[in-house]
Amino acid sequence: MASDALMVSTPGFVAAAGAFLFIGYLYLKIAGFKTGADIGEPQVDILSAQIKSGAEKFLKTEYSFLVVFVIALAITLFVLFTFTEGLASAVAVSLSFIFGATLSASAGWWGMMVATDGNAKTTAACATDKQTGKKGTLNDGLKVAFTTGAVMGFAVVGLGLAGVSLCYFLLSTAFSSDDKVMQCLAGFGFGASSIALFARVAGGIYTKAADVGADLVGKVEAGIDEDDPHNPAVIADNVGDNVGDVAGMGADLFESYVGSVIAAATLAAGDLAKIKLAFYLPAVGIVCSIIGYFAVNTKEEGKGWNVELGALMWALEKGMYLAGALFIGGALGVNFVLDLPIEIFFCVIIGLLAGIFIGKFTEYFTSFDFGPVKSIKDRGLTGPATVVIQGLGVGMISCVPPVIILAVSIVSTSALGERAGSAGYGVAISAVGMLSTLGITLATDAYGPVADNAGGLAELSYLDKSVRAITDSLDALGNTTAATGKGFAIGSAVLTALSLLTAFKGKINLAPSEYDIGEPIVLSGVLTGAMLPFLFAALTMISVGKAAAEIIAEVRYQFANVTNEAGMTLGDCIRLYTKEKEHNEDWVCPADKEVKPDSDKCVEISTRSSVQEMIAPGAYAVLAPLVGGFLVGPRFLMGMLAGSIASGCMLAICMANAGGAWDNAKKLCEKLGLKKKAPDLQKACVVGDTVGDPFKDTSGPALNILIKLMSMVSLTVAPLLADYDSDFKYWYFGSVPLAIFIGLTLILIKLNILTWDDPLGSHLKGDGYQMI
Amino acid sequence: MASDALMVSTPGFVAAAGAFLFIGYLYLKIAGFKTGADIGEPQVDILSAQIKSGAEKFLKTEYSFLVVFVIALAITLFVLFTFTEGLASAVAVSLSFIFGATLSASAGWWGMMVATDGNAKTTAACATDKQTGKKGTLNDGLKVAFTTGAVMGFAVVGLGLAGVSLCYFLLSTAFSSDDKVMQCLAGFGFGASSIALFARVAGGIYTKAADVGADLVGKVEAGIDEDDPHNPAVIADNVGDNVGDVAGMGADLFESYVGSVIAAATLAAGDLAKIKLAFYLPAVGIVCSIIGYFAVNTKEEGKGWNVELGALMWALEKGMYLAGALFIGGALGVNFVLDLPIEIFFCVIIGLLAGIFIGKFTEYFTSFDFGPVKSIKDRGLTGPATVVIQGLGVGMISCVPPVIILAVSIVSTSALGERAGSAGYGVAISAVGMLSTLGITLATDAYGPVADNAGGLAELSYLDKSVRAITDSLDALGNTTAATGKGFAIGSAVLTALSLLTAFKGKINLAPSEYDIGEPIVLSGVLTGAMLPFLFAALTMISVGKAAAEIIAEVRYQFANVTNEAGMTLGDCIRLYTKEKEHNEDWVCPADKEVKPDSDKCVEISTRSSVQEMIAPGAYAVLAPLVGGFLVGPRFLMGMLAGSIASGCMLAICMANAGGAWDNAKKLCEKLGLKKKAPDLQKACVVGDTVGDPFKDTSGPALNILIKLMSMVSLTVAPLLADYDSDFKYWYFGSVPLAIFIGLTLILIKLNILTWDDPLGSHLKGDGYQMI
Repeated sequence: MASDALMVSTPGFVAAAGAFLFIGYLYLKIAGFKTGADIGEPQVDILSAQIKSGAEKFLKTEYSFLVVFVIALAITLFVLFTFTEGLASAVAVSLSFIFGATLSASAGWWGMMVATDGNAKTTAACATDKQTGKKGTLNDGLKVAFTTGAVMGFAVVGLGLAGVSLCYFLLSTAFSSDDKVMQCLAGFGFGASSIALFARVAGGIYTKAADVGADLVGKVEAGIDEDDPHNPAVIADNVGDNVGDVAGMGADLFESYVGSVIAAATLAAGDLAKIKLAFYLPAVGIVCSIIGYFAVNTKEEGKGWNVELGALMWALEKGMYLAGALFIGGALGVNFVLDLPIEIFFCVIIGLLAGIFIGKFTEYFTSFDFGPVKSIKDRGLTGPATVVIQGLGVGMISCVPPVIILAVSIVSTSALGERAGSAGYGVAISAVGMLSTLGITLATDAYGPVADNAGGLAELSYLDKSVRAITDSLDALGNTTAATGKGFAIGSAVLTALSLLTAFKGKINLAPSEYDIGEPIVLSGVLTGAMLPFLFAALTMISVGKAAAEIIAEVRYQFANVTNEAGMTLGDCIRLYTKEKEHNEDWVCPADKEVKPDSDKCVEISTRSSVQEMIAPGAYAVLAPLVGGFLVGPRFLMGMLAGSIASGCMLAICMANAGGAWDNAKKLCEKLGLKKKAPDLQKACVVGDTVGDPFKDTSGPALNILIKLMSMVSLTVAPLLADYDSDFKYWYFGSVPLAIFIGLTLILIKLNILTWDDPLGSHLKGDGYQMI
Repeated sequence: MASDALMVSTPGFVAAAGAFLFIGYLYLKIAGFKTGADIGEPQVDILSAQIKSGAEKFLKTEYSFLVVFVIALAITLFVLFTFTEGLASAVAVSLSFIFGATLSASAGWWGMMVATDGNAKTTAACATDKQTGKKGTLNDGLKVAFTTGAVMGFAVVGLGLAGVSLCYFLLSTAFSSDDKVMQCLAGFGFGASSIALFARVAGGIYTKAADVGADLVGKVEAGIDEDDPHNPAVIADNVGDNVGDVAGMGADLFESYVGSVIAAATLAAGDLAKIKLAFYLPAVGIVCSIIGYFAVNTKEEGKGWNVELGALMWALEKGMYLAGALFIGGALGVNFVLDLPIEIFFCVIIGLLAGIFIGKFTEYFTSFDFGPVKSIKDRGLTGPATVVIQGLGVGMISCVPPVIILAVSIVSTSALGERAGSAGYGVAISAVGMLSTLGITLATDAYGPVADNAGGLAELSYLDKSVRAITDSLDALGNTTAATGKGFAIGSAVLTALSLLTAFKGKINLAPSEYDIGEPIVLSGVLTGAMLPFLFAALTMISVGKAAAEIIAEVRYQFANVTNEAGMTLGDCIRLYTKEKEHNEDWVCPADKEVKPDSDKCVEISTRSSVQEMIAPGAYAVLAPLVGGFLVGPRFLMGMLAGSIASGCMLAICMANAGGAWDNAKKLCEKLGLKKKAPDLQKACVVGDTVGDPFKDTSGPALNILIKLMSMVSLTVAPLLADYDSDFKYWYFGSVPLAIFIGLTLILIKLNILTWDDPLGSHLKGDGYQMI
């Protein structure tokens, strides 16, 4: 058994070691890139350090909360498993859980660290070197941002594959039963999922609260630039990009990656060759991704909107396609070596292609080259309401192609899997195939937020406008590659969640007829499950609104009350800047008129409120399957999982694509110069974009994790549910999570965290409504 | 058999006859109410006649399209059933289908006719009688509007019960097999559902396109009152209230009502007592509703917002509660007489209570007395985007209580039903219980649009502002009673659809284990089904936007180009009115300065575009279960139905409640006088309200029908699917509906009906973006 285990894990260790070596190479490359100080703009580094410190503070606060959560849950698992499965299992599950949680958190932390270093260097690469006079180019910027993104991508896959392989190896050494091994491996996935959910939710709330807050008071009210350094919320906004789009995404995809491997290995049902394949494919994928990396480069020069986005896009996609093509060959080889039926190989390929097709359709619905986004922009003619309606319509209709692709994939891979011995394994291994080249996919996705931050730094440091133009091009391209990334994220989430559901069913001692979808218990499970993503999306969206309102109140307060030694307020200083800069772009403010905002305060508020707001949705997501499973039984829980996967999938696609489409409709207005030609139309599109912010960056991505987390929780506690041969059999066990659910809700209401009250309530008092 | 059939149907005939007699009484009462001419305001009658003629024109256009559709579908059913079930079945199914469709259309027509007469009389009741000088009161208006609504309510239940009883009687006489009878009865339900869907969709698009179009150019652009007679779209807007909220709702609830009876009778599985109960309960409900009617009255006087809504609400609810209480007694009696287990009676009561509770929670989320609506209003401080986000959040979170209530109802009624012999029957009979007192529920719901129209007539006829204030109170109250009505509509839709799904399963020769929700085929069905409501909602929302744009273009054209003999344009005339009325409220326009808009043109545009836009969503809804069922098989179709019920239920609740909440948030602003105190906050809430319009009046209610229609289609074609013992067995049959699906889509694209293009495209050309 131990030698088998070594055979399964070794390629994973080797590939992960390769990934880490490659990251070492990337670090050397990054070390060679110039900093702000190197090109004579040291303030870029100072601001970047400020952003890094804010991101660190946030992650520390978040993680210190999560440590409590993880320990509490580990103890719960330990107690439950001690009574039902014995001490050895209990220790193994709890430790696996902690291990998974730790690695997921590390992936997020790592990504954040490298991204906050990379942003300043990207700015420097796009700017003019004061020493040499050399002008920065788009290609220079792309190189730095993409290298930074690659560290993140390979860190996630390296940690993921090493972690899951190590966990499998240790568990196989400890237990002789394959069942036990897989059981404890599910604990590893559970740990990763729960951290991913909290990180996505808190990061998502943070980034959008700071963004919306900074924009509404700064850009809209005071009429200053998006990243004006006088806006106290600007640093928080830039911190948010790192903790949400980088750390949150890192934890998220770490979880998808290991989740797909765990699901496939579980559904291999002890067939060693099939288990091996689940671990070997990601290993092959890492190698292909490294090769793909070297195919990315571009000669394209670009200034603002004039850049040829198609050519640039191709530069990036080349790497992905090369990696994909190599992977197909590699997968065929592995399939042959393991002597597995060729049907399995086809399943892998179907998964890979499905991911790419979903990404392409996502591009159609969210890129401004096509009808949907143009139609949203056009509806701006009749105001913000019609922009919102059209955007929602586009988001909803965009569910159609991915769902058809997924349904066809599921039907065909399960039919192929059936011929190769197991329908469930066919679906599960296709999810592994989809995610195998994640290293390069994530690299092309993660560079976007780095470029975005670089643009922020350029503006905060008063660099030349041309720098911002270059970073804007990079950012626009990032929006499109992000669409491809989202396709993979959603597609793999659905396939993985369905595989976990199948694996869960395998652990329960009930006849298939018990899961009849026509049974009222199963149907009420489906209904309840379908409701959960709506509850979850609602909680996160309302949280963004509340957190943003706190930021707004603080920024307004600072504009009026923060003064320098001469007694000049921040607001006065901004007005002075606006007045002077109008006539003279190069005007420099005299030192005694300059006022510095208290950025730390906004960072603090965002941190506190986002961590506070993540508690309810995060805890509900973990508790819901426990309540359903223990109170009613596994039949109900199966229905619940299926319902939540189905409605969660729709909502996730709809929200992500509507958000992306609104964002690009606004960008299209800017590109067409409508800000001057049709200001009302442009304003209407800005409203759509703001509505879309929590859609695409908070609620939408978190829904992907929700459906996987719920399945992972169920799979982990499956042995405890195995004896429920009639509904409500041990309902009293279910009363415990239900009591926690209700108790937590009451406490959150008492603490005024779950409330309909507006944090800006003081502005609403009396007759004098102070408008913002 | 024939005598049994007579026993089953007789109470239905008697109760329906009672309903028609009662309607006769109501007509006598209405005839006694004064018209506009009677109180010396003949222009009220003239305008009302204009609205009536517009509504008739629309319904005729719509119905002439539907005749083709119904005949085509009847022939299809005839051909299919001739080959598989024999000629007798084929004739019976097709005729039942046509009969159901005809009655559903008649219910809509009848409601529209009485509502368009009632509106003028309601205006007259609220206005001052020029002959006697007697001032109209709120109570007078309520009496007329409620009597009108009652005609509608009792017409629907009378036609419904008479129709389904007659159909059952004739079929039972013709066939000796209970199975065949139920089979053909499903055809009746299918006919009713398909008309309901088209009527809801076309009516919903019509009403919102005209509303949005009239408001955006009239209220927003020209700054004139909502119902200013110079606005050429105002008549269309008022027509819309009648064809959408009255005719559409009539067809919708007709379908729910007969659908619940058909589902319960089918699931009675030949047990005569249980079949009888399904027909007797609505009969008892009609009697109780008639008694309840006489309990409604109010002494409350009201002027605008100062009216005590609670007291008024109670006046209306009294009738509902009395009817409900009487019904409980009656149901117990019937249960006793039929010698059925007491568990069945409890199922009926659970259904009734579930409907009421869902209604109460709906009220919490949509009434401005509670936190959710207030929080939406508060978010207006930071602009329209936060209003939209908060409203969506409220809508999404409002899914939680109804879903928990439904899940508990399903679990408990199926457990009770199980003890009484059939779990499915327990659920189905609870839906019948929920809808039994529909007569009175619908009366309290349908009076709302009548009052709304009455207000429109008052303003169009330049009556005193106090008249509009009274009708506004009535309308506000109508919004709250509508919430209760929506609770019943959604709750009964879900229960009925689930019962139909169970009935469908009973017709298929597959083992329960085949429907295992863990099977990939079933799961991909669930995913596909969950996508359909999103597609459907998207199509209808986008249609509203396009149809509204056409109206906008026409209104703008008329403002600039319609002239009187003196050459004065409509726009000039409006400006003159605005100028003069500012100083002198009683100013009368000299005849040579008056310009009349061409209202018929807007009616024509709305009619054409809404009928045109209803084709795609309506046809897709009918075709989708046919494609899924015939192409893949009944297992896939079962998954599809469950998925669409689950996601359709969430979207329907979310859209209806978000729409209602936005509407009332805007009303709350008006009530608090924020239009002057915080105009930007108020404007932000108006944006929310406009987004909510298609939510609550087009897409949301149509989703209720969608889930029932899909189940009804499946049940009707179930015998043709009974032999699919393996997936894709007769996939070539499925290629026919799929080909129609694709062909229709291509034709609609070719005709530019399915398009991303904007009808206002001409305004978007070139540099000169003409803003609207």
